[in-house]
Amino acid sequence: MTAPPKPKGIVLASGGMDSLVLSAFATRESEISLLHVTYGQRTERKELACFHAIADHLKVKERMVADIGYLRTFGGSALTDPAVDIPPADLERKGVPVTYVPFRNAHFLCIAVSWAEVIGAKNVYIGAVWADSSGYPDCRPAFYGAMNEAIRMGTKDDSGIRVKAPFVNLKKKDIVLMGKSLGVPFEHTWSCYRDGEKACGRCDSCALRLAAFAEAEVPDPLEYGVRPDR
Amino acid sequence: MTAPPKPKGIVLASGGMDSLVLSAFATRESEISLLHVTYGQRTERKELACFHAIADHLKVKERMVADIGYLRTFGGSALTDPAVDIPPADLERKGVPVTYVPFRNAHFLCIAVSWAEVIGAKNVYIGAVWADSSGYPDCRPAFYGAMNEAIRMGTKDDSGIRVKAPFVNLKKKDIVLMGKSLGVPFEHTWSCYRDGEKACGRCDSCALRLAAFAEAEVPDPLEYGVRPDR
Repeated sequence: MTAPPKPKGIVLASGGMDSLVLSAFATRESEISLLHVTYGQRTERKELACFHAIADHLKVKERMVADIGYLRTFGGSALTDPAVDIPPADLERKGVPVTYVPFRNAHFLCIAVSWAEVIGAKNVYIGAVWADSSGYPDCRPAFYGAMNEAIRMGTKDDSGIRVKAPFVNLKKKDIVLMGKSLGVPFEHTWSCYRDGEKACGRCDSCALRLAAFAEAEVPDPLEYGVRPDR
Repeated sequence: MTAPPKPKGIVLASGGMDSLVLSAFATRESEISLLHVTYGQRTERKELACFHAIADHLKVKERMVADIGYLRTFGGSALTDPAVDIPPADLERKGVPVTYVPFRNAHFLCIAVSWAEVIGAKNVYIGAVWADSSGYPDCRPAFYGAMNEAIRMGTKDDSGIRVKAPFVNLKKKDIVLMGKSLGVPFEHTWSCYRDGEKACGRCDSCALRLAAFAEAEVPDPLEYGVRPDR
C-alpha cells in the first residue's frame, strides 16, 4: 500500500536561514516548488545563489524566479535604495525600521498564489517571523489571516489555496534548532542586509541571526566581518 | 479661504473604459497619480498608449508603469498565453472564463499599496466591476473588503491606506453614463481582448462594452471589426 500523494506546495525562498528551514519542513507535507522573488534588493546576487543551492540540496524540480523590480523604483527602503544607509543593529528600536520594504510580503504571497492557481498547488509557505523580528508590519500574524480571506474570495471557488506561515510565532532560536534536526545546510544561506564578501555582523539581520544561533548553541557556518564575543 | 488639500490617491488604470471613468471620478476627491501594470497581456501596446493619453487628458503629473511579466511565464490564461484562444463572446456562460488571469487584481492592489505607502497616498482606486462582468473571482466585492483588512494589518499603523472600488456594484451602463457626464474621452480607451487594428467586437470584453454603450444610448467612438446591429 502506497501513501497518498502529497498536495503540491509552493515555498517562498529568499535564500535566508528561515526559508531554508521552511523549505525542508514543507517537504514533509507537500510536494514543493520553490519561488524566489527579486525586487532590486542590495543582496540579490547572494540570495539567488543561495536559493539555487537550497533547491539543489532539496532536489526541487520546479523553481521560479519572479522579478518585481518596480519596488526599487518606488524606493522608500534601505534595502532597495542605495541612498539610504543600512543602520547599525538595534534590536531595542521602537517603530518600523528603515529596512522595511512597504507591503513587500503581500507581493510575495500574490505571486505564489497566482502560480499555485495555475499549477494546482494548495499550500503556499512563507517563512515570516514576528515574535522575534525587526517589527515589519507585513510579518504580523493577523496579516496572514487577512490574506487567507482575500485569497479565498479572490481565487476560484475550488482553488483551496492556503497561506501557511508556520514560523510566525516561533523564536529564531527554535528555527535554528528545527533546521539542525532537519540537517539543513546553513552554509547555503545569506541573511545580511549588506552585499559584502562576508556577512557584516553589524546589521539587524546579522544581529538576529547571530543571537539565534548563539541561543540555540548551534555553530553558524557563515563568516562575519565583525562578530560579537560569545 | 482655500479648500483643504485633497489627499493623494493612486488610480489603477489599464487604459480601458472603466479605468478612464474611474480616473476622472477620482480627481474629484483625490490628488491622483496613475499606475499602469503590464503583465505580458496581448493588448499591452494598445493599453499603454491609452494609459498615457488618459494621463495627459487629466493632466496627471505622477504616472508609473510596473512590469509583472512573470504572470505570462505562469500562463493559465487566454490573455497571457498565445496558445489559448480568446473565446467568442458568451455572456450567459457559467463558471470562470479562460480569460481569467489568476489573482491578477491582487497584484495590482499590492503594487498600488506599496507605492501609496512610499508617497503617502491614502486612497487606492480600482475599477473592478462585479454586477455586470465576466465573473472573475478577483472582482467580487468581498475580495476588496478582505484586501482592505490585509492592507490594514500589513502596512504601517499610520498608513491609512484604503482600497476603493466604487464601480464594483455598478452596471457597465451606469459607468458609461457617468463617463459621459464627466466628459471623458472614450476614444482613448481599449477594451478588446485582441490586439487587432480595430476592436474585434466578438470577445466578452467587446460584448460587455457594446451592450453598455447601447443601453446607455451613448455612441461608442471606437471602430469595431464586427459590430452587432443596434
